[in-house]
Amino acid sequence: MMAETATISRFEVIFDAEGVNRSKFRNDVKVHLRGPYAVSYELPTDEGGIHGGDGSAPYPLAYFTSALTACVMTQIRAFSKRLGIPVDGFTVKTRCHWQAQQNGNAPYESAPVAFTMDVDIESDASEADKRRLLAAAQKGCFVEQSLKPGLVRHRLKIGERWVDA
Amino acid sequence: MMAETATISRFEVIFDAEGVNRSKFRNDVKVHLRGPYAVSYELPTDEGGIHGGDGSAPYPLAYFTSALTACVMTQIRAFSKRLGIPVDGFTVKTRCHWQAQQNGNAPYESAPVAFTMDVDIESDASEADKRRLLAAAQKGCFVEQSLKPGLVRHRLKIGERWVDA
Repeated sequence: MMAETATISRFEVIFDAEGVNRSKFRNDVKVHLRGPYAVSYELPTDEGGIHGGDGSAPYPLAYFTSALTACVMTQIRAFSKRLGIPVDGFTVKTRCHWQAQQNGNAPYESAPVAFTMDVDIESDASEADKRRLLAAAQKGCFVEQSLKPGLVRHRLKIGERWVDA
Repeated sequence: MMAETATISRFEVIFDAEGVNRSKFRNDVKVHLRGPYAVSYELPTDEGGIHGGDGSAPYPLAYFTSALTACVMTQIRAFSKRLGIPVDGFTVKTRCHWQAQQNGNAPYESAPVAFTMDVDIESDASEADKRRLLAAAQKGCFVEQSLKPGLVRHRLKIGERWVDA
């Protein structure tokens, strides 16, 4: 009697960063992927002048919005192959909406309101296949899986319509 | 009889982005802050060669790690003033750890394992004040408040010790 062969595998993804702030709102942040394919990036942030900064680098939330957008895009591309659903180009439009509440000049408390992503996949694939691809991309998206459940809502363009996905 | 004056106020923070993928893993992502202080950033992403990309831009998760690191840093600086807790410089070291699981070559599913942040605030402030400042920064951090509850763990340097915060 043969044992069944388990084909389930796991892999780890780790990024680390060090951020240094010396004054005002400029944060010098260096991010590293370690290991055999190590790479490092300088990804500083600042606030705009109206928020007390010098506008010397993107806002932290600009990086966040790119990360969320690009993470699901990367998985659409990666899983297109794995699922055999051919894809030409695609576009994703993301809107990240937060609200903050403060009492006088006390520190404010912030909360996400809604993050929406509109996904337009250029492909001859059926609606069912496009939905299957987007669903897989969501489950594989490291950023989205780190967010509060239900926070991100997706719409998919089918023909000329936008449908919830 | 005078009505009580409510000093509670709210404000909205909205970033939006459009990402375009034409082939492979390069995502051209443009991020916008709209309104009277509008600003836009080109924040493209790519995967490294080992992951099928061309390494032409940072990984999406590199942006994410910077955003998480810098968001809490920005609030430490902002709330230092509001709380009257003087701060010189400070450093934050972040580690974001995810795991992915796959069955054969099917699309993988990802999940966060642990995000840790080690915060070292240069200040003559007491341990209690440093804790109060970091606690306020966490509640104000737009990125952290968007994440699954309990995912991020913080440590604070007090003298030569690292303590949970």
